Amino acid sequence: MKACILAIGSEMLTPFRVDTNSLAITERLNAIGCDVRVKTVVGDDIDELARVLTVALDTTDLVICTGGLGPTEDDVTRDAAARVLGLPLDLHEAILERIRARFARRGLEMADINRRQAMVPRGATVLENALGTAPGLWLERGTTTLVLLPGPPREMTPMLEAVIRDRLAPRTGGRGLFRRVLKITGRTESAVDAVAQPVYGAWTKSTAPIPITTTILAVMGQIELHLTASASSRAEADVALDAAVGALVAALGAAVYSIDGRPLEAVVGDLLRRARWTVAAAESCTGGLLMSRLTAVPGSSAYVDRGLVCYSNQAKVDWLGVPQTIIDEHGAVSESVARAMAEGVRGRASTNVGIGITGIAGPDGGTAEKPVGTVAIAVVTDGGADVRTFAFIGNREQVNYQSTQAAMNMLRLMLLGR
Amino acid sequence: MKACILAIGSEMLTPFRVDTNSLAITERLNAIGCDVRVKTVVGDDIDELARVLTVALDTTDLVICTGGLGPTEDDVTRDAAARVLGLPLDLHEAILERIRARFARRGLEMADINRRQAMVPRGATVLENALGTAPGLWLERGTTTLVLLPGPPREMTPMLEAVIRDRLAPRTGGRGLFRRVLKITGRTESAVDAVAQPVYGAWTKSTAPIPITTTILAVMGQIELHLTASASSRAEADVALDAAVGALVAALGAAVYSIDGRPLEAVVGDLLRRARWTVAAAESCTGGLLMSRLTAVPGSSAYVDRGLVCYSNQAKVDWLGVPQTIIDEHGAVSESVARAMAEGVRGRASTNVGIGITGIAGPDGGTAEKPVGTVAIAVVTDGGADVRTFAFIGNREQVNYQSTQAAMNMLRLMLLGR
Repeated sequence: MKACILAIGSEMLTPFRVDTNSLAITERLNAIGCDVRVKTVVGDDIDELARVLTVALDTTDLVICTGGLGPTEDDVTRDAAARVLGLPLDLHEAILERIRARFARRGLEMADINRRQAMVPRGATVLENALGTAPGLWLERGTTTLVLLPGPPREMTPMLEAVIRDRLAPRTGGRGLFRRVLKITGRTESAVDAVAQPVYGAWTKSTAPIPITTTILAVMGQIELHLTASASSRAEADVALDAAVGALVAALGAAVYSIDGRPLEAVVGDLLRRARWTVAAAESCTGGLLMSRLTAVPGSSAYVDRGLVCYSNQAKVDWLGVPQTIIDEHGAVSESVARAMAEGVRGRASTNVGIGITGIAGPDGGTAEKPVGTVAIAVVTDGGADVRTFAFIGNREQVNYQSTQAAMNMLRLMLLGR
Repeated sequence: MKACILAIGSEMLTPFRVDTNSLAITERLNAIGCDVRVKTVVGDDIDELARVLTVALDTTDLVICTGGLGPTEDDVTRDAAARVLGLPLDLHEAILERIRARFARRGLEMADINRRQAMVPRGATVLENALGTAPGLWLERGTTTLVLLPGPPREMTPMLEAVIRDRLAPRTGGRGLFRRVLKITGRTESAVDAVAQPVYGAWTKSTAPIPITTTILAVMGQIELHLTASASSRAEADVALDAAVGALVAALGAAVYSIDGRPLEAVVGDLLRRARWTVAAAESCTGGLLMSRLTAVPGSSAYVDRGLVCYSNQAKVDWLGVPQTIIDEHGAVSESVARAMAEGVRGRASTNVGIGITGIAGPDGGTAEKPVGTVAIAVVTDGGADVRTFAFIGNREQVNYQSTQAAMNMLRLMLLGR
C-alpha cells in the first residue's frame, strides 16, 4: 500500500517549525507494510489544500492528513475534503453533543464556532478523539482511503494507533518494512559506495525472497548505510537483514563501527568498559568536544577519568608537562605536541589511554604549510601509540567534529586490535 | 511569487529524519517577498520525483529542490529534471575538470561515478558549489523557474544565498517578510509570555503601518520570541522591528541575552573580550560541554585559557586542590565543591574568572535529597562569587545543556553588573 502524509498548518511553512507528526505516522505505517512515498506540508488555505489533496488521492492508496480540524476559520481540512470528494457537509448531532458535554464537564459553555467541528462530509466514518474536541474522519473514494486526524501529537497518536489496529492492519497483506543502519567513519562516501554497491546491488532484485533497499548517506564525520527489508514479519526480516549486514561488514571491514544505531562514543565506551581501560584526554582545538561526547554516554564515569582543555600553550606546559622546546621546534600543531599532550595527560591521570588533539579549526590561524583543517591526533595506550595528521575540510564546527570522530575511531581500532 | 520547496532523499521518508533545509530556504525566500505555498519530501525514486516535480512546476512560479545531486545511483534529481523538462543530459567538461581538480587537491583520484555529477540538462545554467563536488542547476520552463541545489546545508546555504542575490531578488518587487529573534534564558515560557503579551498585543492590529506578528517558542535552555514584519523593504521593516525589539527589551530587561541571533556563548565571549577578562572552567557532570560551547566561537582563544573535566573525584583533588574533606562533608554535588572547583581552576590558571559545575545529569546517580537534575554552579571573579543550585528537568543531555546555559548566564549577568 502506497501512502502520502499531509501535514496541514501555515506555521509549518514558516522558517521556525517542521512537521514531526509524519515521523510517528511513518514508523507505524511501515510496520504494517505501508510505504510512505511522499510527505507534503500545506498551509491553512482551502484552495491549495484541495489541490494537494486531489493529487494525493489520485496517486496513492492511503492519504493521512494531520491538522486543520480545529474550530476556527483557519481550520479548513473538513471543507477541503468535502469539496474534493464532492460530498455535502452535514451537522453530526452526536459529535455536537459530545463536544458540548466536554465543555460542560469543565463548567464551560460550548462556543458557537465549535459547531464547525461537528460538520461531517456525508458518508464519513467518525474516529473518536478521547483527548480533544476534534473528531477524526475516515473517508473512501474507490480504492483510496483518506484519514483526517487532528494536529496535536497527544490527540493524533492514539487515534492513529486505533485506526491502524482496527482498520488498516487487517487490509494489508502483513508485509512490513524493517530497518538497519550501518555507520562508517574514516572513509569517503564514494569509497564506501564503491565497496558496498557490488554487495547490495543484488538485494534489490525483485526476485529476491526478501528484497532489501539500501540508501547511502553522508553526514558530518561519518557515512550511513540504511537497509530496509520488506518482509511479512520481523523475524523473517531479521534473517535477511542479519545476512545483509554480515555481507556489508565483511566487505567494509572495521570501518563499520555500528550496526545497531549506536553513536561512536557509545561503541568506544563499550570497548573501554570491556577492556577495563580508563581514558583521559588533552584537547586544544576541539575545546572539550571530545570529552563532552565521551561523557554524553550514561555510565561513562566508569571509564572517563578526566580531560584537559589547554587552549593556551602555557596550559600545555603547566598541566601536561609538554616541553616548551617541542612547541618551539615543531609548532603547537604538530604530531610531537599531540603525542606529548597524550602522554602528559595519561601520565598525570594514571589512565590506560591518553588522547591528545591539537589543530587549526579556523576560521583564522591557518598558514600555507598548516592550513585550516590541519589536526594532529595522538592516542597512547599501554600497548603503543598511534599518531596521525589529518587535513579536514569544513568550518570550525565541522573540523572539530571530524577531529573527535577521528580520535575516537583511532582508539576504537586500537581496542579492536588488542 | 509562489514557491514550492522539494526535499529529495529517501532518508527523509523514514521515521528518523525530517527535512530542515526548507527552514533556511523559507526564511530567505520570505525576505524577498516570495511565498512558500507547499513543501514536499520525496524519495530517491525517479518516477515519483518526476511526478512530484511535474505538479510543482505546473502550480507554482518557483521550485527549489535540495538533494539527489550526489555521485551515486541513488542521486536521480538531475535525471528527473531532464525527463520532466524533456531535455537531454550532456557531459559538462568544465564541471568534470573542477571535480577532478577538487579530488587532486586532496591527493585523490576522482572516482568514475563522480562523472554523473558533471551531467547537465541541456540549456541549464550551472550554479557553482565552492564547498562540494555537486554543482547546482538553474532551469526555466516558460515563466516557471526550477533550481536544483545539493542537500548538505553547508554547501546548499551559500549557493542559495548567491541565487537569491543575483537571480531571484532582482525579479521580485513586493513586500517581504523580515524577522528578528529575541533570546531569553532563566525564565519560563509562561513568565516570558505574561510580560511580553501586553507589549506585542497592539502590533498585530491590521491598522498598524507595518504589522508585526509574534511567536513564542520554548527550546532547550531558552525561550525565543520571533517577530515578523511585513514591509516593502528591509529599511522600512528595520524601523518597525527596532521599535518592537526596544519595547520588549524594556519590558523583559536583562533576561534578554540576544536580539541579533547570536548564541549565548558568543554574547558572553564579547563581554569577556570587552572586559579583557580571561576564563577557566572546571566541569564535572557537563563533561566539557561548557568549554566546547565557549570555544566554538571563532577567536575565543583570546579569553578562554583552559578547562578541566574532572569526572573522578581524584581529579578534583589532584588538579584543582578541592579538599577531600569538603567532598566528604558536603558531597561531590554541592555548592561548596562547585565553589572550590571554580576557585581552584581560577587560581591555577591565573584567570579573571573561574567556573565550577558539579551535578547529577542522570539517568542514574540521583537520590531523594539530590535527584537527577540537581546541579551546583559557581562563578568566581575578581569582584566576587555567584553560587547557585538548580533543579533542572529533562534527560542527561537536557540537564547538561541547561547547566552550561545557566553558568554562562550567571557570568553574563556578573559582567553586565561590573
